[in-house]
Amino acid sequence: MKIINGGITKPQGFKASGLCCGIRKSGKFDLGLIFSEVPCVAAGVFTKNSVVAAPLVISKKHLKNGKAQAMIVNSGNANCYTGELGLLHAYLTTEVIAKKLGILTTDVLVTSTGIIGKTLPYEKIEKAAEELVNSLSKTGSSNFEKAILTTDLIVKEKTVEITVAGKKVVIGGCAKGSGMIAPNMATMLGFVNTDVAISPKLLKEALAYAVELSFNRITVDGCMSTNDMVTIFANGKAGNKVITTKGKDFEVFQEALNFVCLDLAKKVVMDGEGATKFITVNVVWAKTQKHAHDMAMAVANSNLVKTAAFGCNPNWGRVAQAVGSLGIPYVNEKHMEIEFSPFDKKEISITVKFNQGKHNATVYTSDLSNEYVRINAEYN
Amino acid sequence: MKIINGGITKPQGFKASGLCCGIRKSGKFDLGLIFSEVPCVAAGVFTKNSVVAAPLVISKKHLKNGKAQAMIVNSGNANCYTGELGLLHAYLTTEVIAKKLGILTTDVLVTSTGIIGKTLPYEKIEKAAEELVNSLSKTGSSNFEKAILTTDLIVKEKTVEITVAGKKVVIGGCAKGSGMIAPNMATMLGFVNTDVAISPKLLKEALAYAVELSFNRITVDGCMSTNDMVTIFANGKAGNKVITTKGKDFEVFQEALNFVCLDLAKKVVMDGEGATKFITVNVVWAKTQKHAHDMAMAVANSNLVKTAAFGCNPNWGRVAQAVGSLGIPYVNEKHMEIEFSPFDKKEISITVKFNQGKHNATVYTSDLSNEYVRINAEYN
Repeated sequence: MKIINGGITKPQGFKASGLCCGIRKSGKFDLGLIFSEVPCVAAGVFTKNSVVAAPLVISKKHLKNGKAQAMIVNSGNANCYTGELGLLHAYLTTEVIAKKLGILTTDVLVTSTGIIGKTLPYEKIEKAAEELVNSLSKTGSSNFEKAILTTDLIVKEKTVEITVAGKKVVIGGCAKGSGMIAPNMATMLGFVNTDVAISPKLLKEALAYAVELSFNRITVDGCMSTNDMVTIFANGKAGNKVITTKGKDFEVFQEALNFVCLDLAKKVVMDGEGATKFITVNVVWAKTQKHAHDMAMAVANSNLVKTAAFGCNPNWGRVAQAVGSLGIPYVNEKHMEIEFSPFDKKEISITVKFNQGKHNATVYTSDLSNEYVRINAEYN
Repeated sequence: MKIINGGITKPQGFKASGLCCGIRKSGKFDLGLIFSEVPCVAAGVFTKNSVVAAPLVISKKHLKNGKAQAMIVNSGNANCYTGELGLLHAYLTTEVIAKKLGILTTDVLVTSTGIIGKTLPYEKIEKAAEELVNSLSKTGSSNFEKAILTTDLIVKEKTVEITVAGKKVVIGGCAKGSGMIAPNMATMLGFVNTDVAISPKLLKEALAYAVELSFNRITVDGCMSTNDMVTIFANGKAGNKVITTKGKDFEVFQEALNFVCLDLAKKVVMDGEGATKFITVNVVWAKTQKHAHDMAMAVANSNLVKTAAFGCNPNWGRVAQAVGSLGIPYVNEKHMEIEFSPFDKKEISITVKFNQGKHNATVYTSDLSNEYVRINAEYN
């Protein structure tokens, strides 16, 4: 596996664009498009929040056949809690883009990020659709990456090259998100494009697995957005023999996909609002995988642990409190050891060790700072 | 029911004392004692954290027979995560007090609050035991209340008078706690004394019920202490016919006990570190009691909701996100309404209404302020 540059338009056959259509008053880019020259095998993972944004409802429907060819994203408005009108707007967005591109409406996915409960100014998207399509280019990934940001401070992309059955395959991804902590309740979005040839079933499995080990292992404040969504498009342009079984080719692809997703997920944490530390929480040798994961999450979500990290204070009593709060019987002073890396660094780690089994879990989080409170209190 | 003054020594037959034995370096009171002239029927509710402090292990053992006559408390050291030595110190504390009082060791309970993981300086307690016993008095409640504080800013007490079977009965309680958010991971402790005559079984039931509706309905940061403990002593001095069934007498007592516990619990929230708001979260007409409770807790523990409250920003998108994050199927925009009281007041409320059933829940919390971060980051 080789780390390269180029992002979501680096795999063969992908183009992208981004522009300002006027949803964000700041004049910043707020509309982005991904397009593959040929229809893709596609898969998605969506928020588990029962309050689901309208574009996710439409995108899930359009993904049912495991196919897609374009993705349109707006920032500045989440199109969530917007009723039947919101659903109509999300559908019309896919329809107008499909017409301009000359493809099926059901092959266009849509997602949104921004404030909840405000009507989407759909007419601005409709007006900008033609320019968005006309400006699609092989170097458009950076404009797309800008268009999906809200309160993010940095763009987040990762690209790798692998060899699958003798053919060069590229995976390029980008993401937006400041955890789930942005003042408008911003959203975690991830987009991965690849030119690999793979069956829809295996692509879906590979994405689910990669997300489980990456985007599902990060937390900033334990808040789950209504708009979270990670998708992957695979257009087969690499020309490799289609991956249809879980052999070596699949493993190589899975490993590279995991790497890309984990890198993007970590970048989301690093860009967490007000974050001054990147914290890795490890739980090792727990009795079950669920125990290990739940304990790591309990530490990562503890305000007491997070403020201690902000204050460069390796307070293990707070870590003991967090893991103990789950009520798991063997989690007590007889069976655990708590270790810290030096706490005055920007990247720190907390490790809770047991001698109870073979299950480990790692979770990534940021600290809780004055700046977090300021940003989230001042928004109005 | 009449609200009166006097606290934990107001019921007949109770005395208390408090002094500084030197555990807290500030010279503040750090050792307190409650004593009943006659043995009491007693009950307790303890932390569900699997990391349990040593004094709680001893107190649970001593409470097994449903009897107690004295309670000794120290602040400044939690005696938690202190191994076999911690257990020995907790036991010796009950023994030395029992000897000075001339009562059974198993009739003395003990609890501690303060920093975790440091050896209890037991010799200071041993030295001060005689003075502590000698200074017991009918007006000692205020000294006791001071001795149980750590980072609390206010003492918390409530006293009521009721009539049970024609006899005047007094219930007096006090508590300590800044939520569970103090820098040493301070503890929520509650002490209730009453002169009612009641069976051990019904006293235990009454306390469990009152705690469920009060101390279990508050949260500051979702952190569960290793030392949480609420106890009740009932010495029967009121001379009422012993309550042994769940008739009218029991109901009158239960109602008054609920009132005292809820008042103390609310005071803990009001004294939460850095708190500038007292927030009541109501969920009404949910399908099950668990749904209602879990949703209210999800709102109360959401950093996004709490920072919004600090910023006087009634952001209902964040409330929708919090209740939706539980994944309960009917929790979506079709079935819910979110209401706020004016957010620029010190006491505010958030109500989430459904039309799905008859179950309601109310939870109390504070906001998340810069001051909270400062206090918990700066401690070292």
